[in-house]
Formats: sequence, structure tokens, C-alpha cells
Amino acid sequence: MSATPPTSLPAAPLTYEQAGVNYDLIDPLKVAAQRAAAATGANLAAHGFGEVVASRGESAYVVDIGPMYLASIVECLGTKTLVADEMARLTGTSRYDAIAQDTIAMAVNDLITVGATPLVVQAYWAAGGSDWFGDAARAQALVAGWKKACDTCGVAWGGGETPALAGIVADGRVDLAASCTGIVSPKSRLSLGEHLGAGDAIVFLASSGIHANGLSLARKLAERLPKGYLTDIGNGQTFGDALLAPTALYSPVTEALAAAGIVPHYSANITGHGWRKLMRHPHTLSYRITAVPDKTPVLAFMQRECGLDDHEAYGTLNMGAGFALYLKAADADRAVAIARGLGVDAIIAGHVEAGPKRVLIDPLGVTFGGDELQLR
Amino acid sequence: MSATPPTSLPAAPLTYEQAGVNYDLIDPLKVAAQRAAAATGANLAAHGFGEVVASRGESAYVVDIGPMYLASIVECLGTKTLVADEMARLTGTSRYDAIAQDTIAMAVNDLITVGATPLVVQAYWAAGGSDWFGDAARAQALVAGWKKACDTCGVAWGGGETPALAGIVADGRVDLAASCTGIVSPKSRLSLGEHLGAGDAIVFLASSGIHANGLSLARKLAERLPKGYLTDIGNGQTFGDALLAPTALYSPVTEALAAAGIVPHYSANITGHGWRKLMRHPHTLSYRITAVPDKTPVLAFMQRECGLDDHEAYGTLNMGAGFALYLKAADADRAVAIARGLGVDAIIAGHVEAGPKRVLIDPLGVTFGGDELQLR
Repeated sequence: MSATPPTSLPAAPLTYEQAGVNYDLIDPLKVAAQRAAAATGANLAAHGFGEVVASRGESAYVVDIGPMYLASIVECLGTKTLVADEMARLTGTSRYDAIAQDTIAMAVNDLITVGATPLVVQAYWAAGGSDWFGDAARAQALVAGWKKACDTCGVAWGGGETPALAGIVADGRVDLAASCTGIVSPKSRLSLGEHLGAGDAIVFLASSGIHANGLSLARKLAERLPKGYLTDIGNGQTFGDALLAPTALYSPVTEALAAAGIVPHYSANITGHGWRKLMRHPHTLSYRITAVPDKTPVLAFMQRECGLDDHEAYGTLNMGAGFALYLKAADADRAVAIARGLGVDAIIAGHVEAGPKRVLIDPLGVTFGGDELQLR
Repeated sequence: MSATPPTSLPAAPLTYEQAGVNYDLIDPLKVAAQRAAAATGANLAAHGFGEVVASRGESAYVVDIGPMYLASIVECLGTKTLVADEMARLTGTSRYDAIAQDTIAMAVNDLITVGATPLVVQAYWAAGGSDWFGDAARAQALVAGWKKACDTCGVAWGGGETPALAGIVADGRVDLAASCTGIVSPKSRLSLGEHLGAGDAIVFLASSGIHANGLSLARKLAERLPKGYLTDIGNGQTFGDALLAPTALYSPVTEALAAAGIVPHYSANITGHGWRKLMRHPHTLSYRITAVPDKTPVLAFMQRECGLDDHEAYGTLNMGAGFALYLKAADADRAVAIARGLGVDAIIAGHVEAGPKRVLIDPLGVTFGGDELQLR
């Protein structure tokens, strides 16, 4: 608990499970889909190709097409648009430029975990009706933000879909997603964890805020704050503005690492499940964190206001660490310097150890056991 | 007009424009997005690659990655799920197996137009809440149909997203889309119309029904039929069942053509805008149709019941032709035989001529001028 006085009345802690998504209903479908999907990998043999089996269950799917690997992904933004819509109503300003970057970040930051260079992004903007596209300021912000994020990541915006889906997407809303395709070239850049092992350094790249995970919780919190999204989080920023900081884009860092000859053994995009994601690789290894980065102000505010203990906060939100690189220890200092040189703060946060599958956050006395992350 | 008595009371003709999508609102955003997207093609130079400029405005985006071309796309199913949902309510049977095939067809049938071999499909299934995934029969049908369509197309199902988006996707509904990535290899298979010209034969591959375009119109029609989706369309089938025939998958045909050494000069997936799509290539050419395939029964029914003249029907719906191949005339007979050998009916439907940009359907006396198709 923090000593800072809460800006809302004392209330029961607000947990992620209360915030709306029931994975018990989704998971049986996911498991069935994963099994069926795995069985289709053999279809590639007819073309003379094959899947990289180790990419099943990782953040992007990888196919061996001979001279290089092909990586692809589709990613949904989630419900962050609901925050942008409410803030536009409250302030008159559309932040769909930031929302566009969030959507691209969801796809690009996942794609790069396998060692891929993102090349093409496709836009998926499904609106609740034609009217949605008639708000010119919002539409221009979305287009401008999408282009800028593509430029930052060095990807081509290939095209996309802008359907009007009255009756499927809610009136006045938009369902945003992005697909991303890239290549792993040279093939030695593939980073699916084959070489991940004890002694590797863990480098954290700083997050820019909540990114696009934990928004259901943030929206629940806004409902119970007397001033809602207009609550000052303690640094002069409103809660809504702070939530809408666009997600950091990490592909400039991973490309610069490759250019410097540094190939991570593994990478993890810290999204849903917070730091539990640090143990996402199937290997049985322990991940010891010895240095904890600054929480971004909005996440510190959420932890305090929701009454989350560290176990819950770090197991749900990114808490300042947006992306983890697992590297040969000798490469860690240089990787940190390269990231900082690109304006992305980075720290050597810990290391990998032999031991049971778990994450140990020493400075906080928090441990996540292997049973606390079920992704596959 | 047909001599068959209408099964509904006489009423005003029902046109596509009345059926709900206002392109005047969407188009300014699309144009802005297309311009911004085009400007990002130059980003590929930093990776030593370049876009294939002629693929801008085509059905899939193509990048030259050296030894081969990379093609990618994301496609939305549209509103066909609303028909499946209503039919499930009326009959107790989920046809989400067919819906899955429709969704994949939207992506695959577009991707192959550029000469690509589809390799990977990603699933995007965004539901209105976790509950949607709790209907086990529907979920199983969706998974099974998705896998089967991937197997038919020889693609690997790479993975995907199954978000629960309460507040964005309508309660009880699902927003379905698919991304597809493929390669053009050897590079000589690229078919962006460079060689399209007078004398080329036009071969039609048969559609299996309405596919996934024109569903807004179909839903409007169902509303005004006394028996709605349970109306017999004249062959013992209900309107709803006929609408839910899954979209034909054409990649087995295009792969077999390639294996036989036949490279189309161009291809068009007949989706929205019906046969107006036949003139989608930017070249100034006339497309003369001399043989019209059988309308599928459901499209004949819709034309009759909506009171559409041939100009409107053929300019909106596929009317029995799901995909058009533009080939060297000497290859046409063999292409037809190859398609039929795979169980896809095909006919030599006409040819390309010098002349103004237009489509002439001689047997029907219908002409579409170049100004009747604005895609770019």
C-alpha cells in the first residue's frame, strides 16, 4: 500500500478478474483452435516448405521458406478505443493518432520477438456503421498516427479493410486490429529460445505507460473515481491522458541490435499477464529480477487506486517494463546502450537461472510460480 | 424480369444503396488512408527491399524480398454472421463451419489474384463478450470449418486472436476476419496485369452462391419476405440455407494452373460491385462477355424478389461467376479443363478488346462504363 492518500473513497480492491473477461469461457475454444491449427502445419510440405514448430505458442508464427523465415501475426487492439472515445467526449480532442500507434505496436512488438524484421502492416478498421468514418478529425488522426507508426518501424502500410459492420460492431465504435508480416533474415536471427539458458541477462525496455493491456481494469477504475478520467494522477496529467500515451514501438531497437551483431536468445513482449510473461518460454528455468524499473506514473496510480498488491500489479500490468530481451550476459551492456541511444530507456534487470519455472522479483519479494501462467 | 411469380407481395425494388452502407462517408477516409499508405512504401528501402508499386490498389499488397515476392492481406467477412445467427435461432443448427470457410475465402481468393501461393492464415475472431465463446457447438463448428478450409487451400493456420470486446462488438455477435500471407515464387508468377491486353480470354470460375458480398441486401430482403429466411427459393432449399453455402475456395485452381505452366495475365475476385470488378485493372480496355454462366439459384431468387434489372444485379452480385482469369487465349481451354478436374465449374466467358474501359455483357445487353467502378 502507498502512503499517498487515495483520490477516491476507500473501496474494495479492484482486480482484473472483476473487470470483465472470463477466460474460462474462451479457453476451451482456444485450446481446440490451437490443436486444429497445429495439425495444419503439415500443409506446407506440399509447397516444399515447413513450419518452425517451436514458433507454435510463441508470439508470431514462423515458416521456413528456404532462404529466409517468414513471420506473421494478427493482433487486436482491445478496448482502449473506449477510453479514447470517452476522452474525446470530455475534452473535444481525438487521440486516435495514439490509438493507431497502439494497434500497430500490438502487432509489431509481438512479431519482433521471434527475430523478425517487420515489413508490412495491414490495417483492420471495422466500424459500427458508415457514420463512424464521417468524423473527419478522428479519421485524420487515425490515418496520421497509423502512417507515423509505420514510418517509425520502417514498415510499409500495405492496405487494409475499412468495413462498416452495423449490427456487429456497436454503433459509434470501431474494432481495430493490425496484421504484420516480416522475415527473419539472415536465418541466424531466429530467436525462439533454443539457446535461452542459465546465465543469460534479462534487459528491460521501458514502457511508455499502460500500453494496450489492462484497459478493462482502467475503465472500471475510472467509473469509481469521482472525477473519472479527468482525475489528476499526481503529476498534473489526467488519468485519461496518461492512459492514452501511445504504446512504445520496439522494432527500431531490435533492428539496431541485429545491425550491431547482437541476436537475443529470446524476447518477450510484456502485455497481458504482466511480468508473468517473463516465463513464457516452455523451458524450465527461473528468471530472477534484481532491478525493478520505475513504474510509469499511470501504473503507479492504478496500483494505488485499485488497491493492488505487488503480486497482482506485476502479474497484470507492465509496471514500467514493456519488453524483455534475454541475451548473452556479455551483450547486455551494449544492448542497453543501443536502446538508450534510440531514446528507449533500458536496464539490466536480472538474469536467467537453473531452477523451477518461476519469476522472482527480489526487490519486491514477489514470486510467480510456473502454474501462474497458462498460455499454451 | 422473370415470369416466376414472386413469393412476396409486389413492392418497390430493393437496391443495394438502400441496404445500409454509405460509401460517401467511408470514401474520404479510404482515400486519405491510401495516400498515406502509398507514402510508406519507401520505408522498405532501408531493409534493401521495395514494394511492387503496381500492387497498390490491387487485391493484395506485394513486396519484392529478393528471391521471391511476399504478398499479404487482411480481409473482413462482413455481415454474413448475422444470417448464420438468425438461421441458428430458427433451425437450431450452427453453420459457423461454413462461415469460417467464407472468412478464409475472402482473404485467400484475394491473395491469389496477384499470383501468390497462400501459405499462412491467421484468425481474427472478436466477440462481443466472453459468453460468445461458451456456445460449444458453434465454437466447434467455427474451428472445424476453419481447419478444413485451411486444408483445402494448403495453408498453415498460424494462430490468431480471440478477443472478447464487450462494448465494441455487439453482445452476442462476432467480428470475423482473416489475414493471409503468401509468396509469389517463381517471381514469373506475378500477375498484376502487365501483360493484360486485347485478345486475352476471360475464364470464369463458378461461384457457390452469394459468397460473402451482398448480404446487406439479402438481409433486407429476408425482412420483407413473409417467411423470411425460411422461404423456399424454388428448389426446396430455404433462402437462409442457400445464403449460407460456403464461398468457393479458388486457390487449388490457381495452384494447379501454375503447376501446368499457365500464368494468368490478371485475375479478379468477383466480390462487391459484382461484374463491374471485371474492369478493375487500371488499363484502358474493354471486357466483352459472350457467355453468361448459370445464376446460382439463390442469386436468381434475389434478383427476382428484389426486382433488380440485369444492370443492377450483375453490377452488385457475382451472378454465378466467382472469379475471373484473364489468360492467353491459347491457354483458355486447358484452364477450363484444369478447374473442372478439381470440381470447380468453369467457362470461357469472353475476351479482352481494345477500346474504352467498360464491361459488355452481350447476351444480356448490359454495359458497365468505366465511371461505374471507382476503386482507387
